[in-house]
Amino acid sequence: MPYVSHQIRLACRPTGAPKPENFRSEEHTVREPGDGEVLLRTMYLSLDPYMRGRMSAAKSYAKSLEIGDVIMGGTVSEVIESRSVGLEPGQIVLGQGGWQSYSTERASELRVLDPDQAPVTTALGVLGMPGFTAYSGLLAIGDPQPGETVAVAAATGPVGSAVGQIAKIKGCRAIGIAGGPKKVAYLDELGFDAALDHRDDDLAGRLAEAAPDGIDVYFENVGGAVFDAVVPRLNLYARVPVCGLAATYNSTEAESGPDRLPELMGLVLRKSLTLRGFIQNEFRPSMFDDFLTDMSGWVRSGQLKYREDITDGLENAPEVFAGMLAGANFGKTIIKVGES
Amino acid sequence: MPYVSHQIRLACRPTGAPKPENFRSEEHTVREPGDGEVLLRTMYLSLDPYMRGRMSAAKSYAKSLEIGDVIMGGTVSEVIESRSVGLEPGQIVLGQGGWQSYSTERASELRVLDPDQAPVTTALGVLGMPGFTAYSGLLAIGDPQPGETVAVAAATGPVGSAVGQIAKIKGCRAIGIAGGPKKVAYLDELGFDAALDHRDDDLAGRLAEAAPDGIDVYFENVGGAVFDAVVPRLNLYARVPVCGLAATYNSTEAESGPDRLPELMGLVLRKSLTLRGFIQNEFRPSMFDDFLTDMSGWVRSGQLKYREDITDGLENAPEVFAGMLAGANFGKTIIKVGES
Repeated sequence: MPYVSHQIRLACRPTGAPKPENFRSEEHTVREPGDGEVLLRTMYLSLDPYMRGRMSAAKSYAKSLEIGDVIMGGTVSEVIESRSVGLEPGQIVLGQGGWQSYSTERASELRVLDPDQAPVTTALGVLGMPGFTAYSGLLAIGDPQPGETVAVAAATGPVGSAVGQIAKIKGCRAIGIAGGPKKVAYLDELGFDAALDHRDDDLAGRLAEAAPDGIDVYFENVGGAVFDAVVPRLNLYARVPVCGLAATYNSTEAESGPDRLPELMGLVLRKSLTLRGFIQNEFRPSMFDDFLTDMSGWVRSGQLKYREDITDGLENAPEVFAGMLAGANFGKTIIKVGES
Repeated sequence: MPYVSHQIRLACRPTGAPKPENFRSEEHTVREPGDGEVLLRTMYLSLDPYMRGRMSAAKSYAKSLEIGDVIMGGTVSEVIESRSVGLEPGQIVLGQGGWQSYSTERASELRVLDPDQAPVTTALGVLGMPGFTAYSGLLAIGDPQPGETVAVAAATGPVGSAVGQIAKIKGCRAIGIAGGPKKVAYLDELGFDAALDHRDDDLAGRLAEAAPDGIDVYFENVGGAVFDAVVPRLNLYARVPVCGLAATYNSTEAESGPDRLPELMGLVLRKSLTLRGFIQNEFRPSMFDDFLTDMSGWVRSGQLKYREDITDGLENAPEVFAGMLAGANFGKTIIKVGES
């Protein structure tokens, strides 16, 4: 029986913030699975800031989308047809189905999820790529030591909230930065030692108060004004894992001066700072098993909380995605993809 | 018998390049050594770019000089009087006598040199702080692997020339950047695989030709235009040990735009770069013994060559120092301090 997949494709590259006209909807019959492949029905689609980069033609660590491509994305799906001995219809898997309601994928690239162990949506967030980004970047690059101070922005997001809570588990002081009073209140609930609203005045001054002993690890996933406020507070030998620069993803032109590069390099030198960019894939071979064990345990024990922001309907993905880049989400952004 | 020390002191802080009026000469009777101290006659004074930073009031990794202080500096000296059981008159020691012809220092802070093992001036260069800066930064942070490409600027200087030659010893392709045809010719002599003159046009284009496989380690001791040319050539996972920014030490104001910081951070992210500032002291406890063994061996076997630029007379130190910051030196800058 042929299945029709509702798809959202890249119509044209966004300039600045993504707009509805950058996307177009299409319907296509799903390709029948070949040997070693399965046909999947998408249940949940993950929306993540990195997708904005793929929509640009600019060279990145990953291949850009071509105009007309289905937008990529992590998905939780149900197996409908299987031509792989390891998978059976009805099983739930984590894959890369993208912004569409059905997909055909290679079984070898899927991970089977057990709904009895954890809600399947967690495979897109706290127990998936964002959680592992937090875990690997903080532990492998940030190397937080008990008593040190760790700061993170977008701190109610799936990466930032895990960074802060893992920092607490490791015996650090955690400072979270987020936008708006509701998010700041949630950081208190998560156990952050200090929670700052980047929309209020004088972030630099409030950060100085919140980090009286300076900052030893700044987990960079935002860039922009928060980075400017944090950098002067970095301690000797501070580490800055850089996993994202969400504040700049929509920027369209070189910023005017002054040129802040010489000052940053001067600080790198005088404070023996480490700035280290990374993509979580780098650490998968060495750390993913430990991550699943540790994080599942912390989630089960209640030491690590997470929050999901789920919207119904694939057709809403473009708008929800644009909102997420502007900070409108509150927790891990997920689209629940309806039956079709 | 009292000894009179000719001294050069900081008269006022330089604005931009140091000028004669920033220094003043004085003569003072040297303090007699107390218990555990020795009275030393300066034979050689090391001039190093870091001293420019100490002449500024700006907060740095080390205490600034106060107005009126004798300028600091590494020195090779002869023991004249000793009140330490370990040291005898006539011995040659490495210390921190500064810009003066006699000094009184604590014996515990000196290292005895053996003139039969190596010329004593090497303790200020290839077998001293600059050599160790090259060795520790390149090996501990740069982590060069056989077949990788290592680039370094100020490549005929005491740090840069050691970086390139150690890179060769470790099986890497070494690219050196220096100012003027004589220095470039010397890099060929040292065995660099490519030697570029930063004064010629289109450094970025020539660098692209010289590094067809990109750059894996850029040892940063200069900053400025060389950094701009190198950064676009950095490979995925490239490492940038940052030990100096000599090109900016004399700069007096924030540079005008465009702001290059967002672009750099974008590259750090997309290429998983490591930028790591350091001061060689950080690695002394763990690496200095290996350094002395390795470097002495390489110098003896002729695998690692060095060049010294020695000027007679302490009174010339201010002019030679300013020249060095402008790239006028050719090799490790040393002042031979005359008898008095």
